[in-house]
Amino acid sequence: MGARGPAGGASTPACAAKEGASRFQPAREPAARTYARALPVVPVRARGLTIEGADGRRYLDCVSGSGTLVLGHNHPVVLEAIRRVLDSGAPLHVTDLTTPVEDAFVTELLRTLPPGLAHHARVRFCGPTGTDPVDTAVALVRAATGRTRVIAAADAHPSVLDDREPGQAPPAGLILEAVRSAAGVLPTPDARVRRLRALTTERAVLLVADETETGVGRTGAYWAFEHSGVTPDVLVLSKAIGGSLPLAAVVHRDGLDGLDDPHAGEPGAGAFRGNQLALAAGAATLAHVREHRLAAHAAALGHRMLTRLRSLAEEFACVGEVRGRGLMAGIELVAPDGTSDTPARGARPGTSAGLAAAVRRECLRRGLIVDTTGPRANVVRLLPPLIVTEEQMSAVLDRLADAVQAVDRRPADPAASPGERIPR
Amino acid sequence: MGARGPAGGASTPACAAKEGASRFQPAREPAARTYARALPVVPVRARGLTIEGADGRRYLDCVSGSGTLVLGHNHPVVLEAIRRVLDSGAPLHVTDLTTPVEDAFVTELLRTLPPGLAHHARVRFCGPTGTDPVDTAVALVRAATGRTRVIAAADAHPSVLDDREPGQAPPAGLILEAVRSAAGVLPTPDARVRRLRALTTERAVLLVADETETGVGRTGAYWAFEHSGVTPDVLVLSKAIGGSLPLAAVVHRDGLDGLDDPHAGEPGAGAFRGNQLALAAGAATLAHVREHRLAAHAAALGHRMLTRLRSLAEEFACVGEVRGRGLMAGIELVAPDGTSDTPARGARPGTSAGLAAAVRRECLRRGLIVDTTGPRANVVRLLPPLIVTEEQMSAVLDRLADAVQAVDRRPADPAASPGERIPR
Repeated sequence: MGARGPAGGASTPACAAKEGASRFQPAREPAARTYARALPVVPVRARGLTIEGADGRRYLDCVSGSGTLVLGHNHPVVLEAIRRVLDSGAPLHVTDLTTPVEDAFVTELLRTLPPGLAHHARVRFCGPTGTDPVDTAVALVRAATGRTRVIAAADAHPSVLDDREPGQAPPAGLILEAVRSAAGVLPTPDARVRRLRALTTERAVLLVADETETGVGRTGAYWAFEHSGVTPDVLVLSKAIGGSLPLAAVVHRDGLDGLDDPHAGEPGAGAFRGNQLALAAGAATLAHVREHRLAAHAAALGHRMLTRLRSLAEEFACVGEVRGRGLMAGIELVAPDGTSDTPARGARPGTSAGLAAAVRRECLRRGLIVDTTGPRANVVRLLPPLIVTEEQMSAVLDRLADAVQAVDRRPADPAASPGERIPR
Repeated sequence: MGARGPAGGASTPACAAKEGASRFQPAREPAARTYARALPVVPVRARGLTIEGADGRRYLDCVSGSGTLVLGHNHPVVLEAIRRVLDSGAPLHVTDLTTPVEDAFVTELLRTLPPGLAHHARVRFCGPTGTDPVDTAVALVRAATGRTRVIAAADAHPSVLDDREPGQAPPAGLILEAVRSAAGVLPTPDARVRRLRALTTERAVLLVADETETGVGRTGAYWAFEHSGVTPDVLVLSKAIGGSLPLAAVVHRDGLDGLDDPHAGEPGAGAFRGNQLALAAGAATLAHVREHRLAAHAAALGHRMLTRLRSLAEEFACVGEVRGRGLMAGIELVAPDGTSDTPARGARPGTSAGLAAAVRRECLRRGLIVDTTGPRANVVRLLPPLIVTEEQMSAVLDRLADAVQAVDRRPADPAASPGERIPR
């Protein structure tokens, strides 16, 4: 994608192109149709796991806004929270001022954190647009340590935390995603997390847990770092914490050198506060997941999901590794003849983006929305909302198994236009 | 500010620190009070220009969410648009799918653009968090030109567009803010804008108009680039386009090499769509400003505002340069004895952040919220919403003049705690 390549790294702009509306360009198809070709669903209504398209068809949505919608679409507690703010006459947007709505969010957020972190936590809101919470966390650990190097746990052999060259300082921080969603749903073993926590503590390196994709019950614990029992120094939060609306924050323990500047949030310093509707929807979501023990529900149904998906790997040659934790699953697709259509860097031998795309399309034909991920889009990902029922989960898995079977029977045809295969 | 220093540049995280809620730390004051010390307003209700604090006091808000709220707080058309989406059952968040709500936004956005751009426009939504539309625009112009250097018009002597070293390629793009808000409200003369457009066209450099702060009528034209009659190649849009909610987009003309990849918005490519409530609130805002000719209203009232503010510069020694366009004004504060309390890089001799902060506090005592800006926070900024009436404008200017008079009479005392001066 032309617009993404040159920037590179964590700040790569993630944008979606859209052609001008048809009134100006009658020779082109309407804007909505442009995307209909890629994924022929124009959602007009949605509730829970279900999306209803403009064509009247219904779909089970296991993309969930890339994991954002832990309570599914339009959950009543979310809608009620948003309406309550609207009806109260509260300001929807304030740049520099704290509000009762924000206060309620912070109170609820701290309730969900382990006491060791909650008792010493500070919360920094990011955005509303233009600031990546990971960038904020990087800046925080640099300021706190006076060092500049920040490394991703995924790239970190434990030895990187040791002095390899005499005199070389340890990194400022280590960023850890307990389950690396975009890398193809790769869980980090708990033992490795504990080892990294021990090493970072020993070397005074700050441990940053990126819970953007894994937080708020998704992996079967409220926060994914809880599986291993460690306490990070910094948390990166986004997606689910906004309860369907955009919200991002960084939580860090107090006492980090250089970060307790009382003027950090003072007006004129470029400070932003969270969006009020997102804070309200987010607080309602955090509370609902906690009160209804949806993390435990995610663990139970997630276990069932992964067990069934692993049986597909035994049944079908095109299914490679199945990975995940809780309601976060990745199914690697491999070309049965062992040759890959994506031999580039980052892809395992034999993995197939073409087959993953074919499974996605076959799922869509069967009323199931999934996406693909991984370094070469060779992994089909399932992120059902935490409110998924046993019955819905069965329907999801049946449709997926059927789609995999359809793909397994014929050779991959990555060049085919998906639009042509969709029944009208 | 510790968290901001190390990152530097355009991607500096702009976050606000917040202490843990009081239940966990009874020894500390409640979170809301932490900020009350910096700006003692806890807004509980807001409408139009007016914010009502938790203490029952009313304020005229001329910060407007750093210019975001062109229709003021909780405008009926914005609330109605949000409620219409909620009531329709439409999904609030979709990652990869276009929706009728998004389509309506794009249609309305194109209506506001000059035909030369609208007829060939593509719209890319950014975010919802973590992507800065300026970063997106930079990536776009790099991809389109195959060159990497992108310069800000503010730093650009026209000669930078010429070959200064044999063989050196021209930059990929030139980013122009018609009025540089954060730099201290510095308008770019129209003649300079036209000259830069001519030079960029001649050298095949893409002209990026950053309308984040200036768009949607703020400067007295619908888009600030229209004052000079030029047509940029790329527009950076944020703030006002979301109608109180976070939304950012980049618009570019089609036909830029390398940018017409039909798969750019395909699922799995990391694409994001705009937040639905923000798209609905934004479309309603764009339409209301257009239909009610609020840009012309902003031009008329802005002229009156700047005229009155310039009279303050003649009346009071502490008022330096008054700058602005439309409903965007900056009042530079200078120490009467000619010595600056902020002699650092970027500040003009004699400018005074202490006096600017004092004016802000005196305004607050009189029920007027303004902020400070500029490289050393030495400029008081006024960004009233476009729906401001003649009568409200008079009240704003009276309170401001009174505040300036109070500050002019006594020496600056930047160390004093603002909280102490606020009557309870």
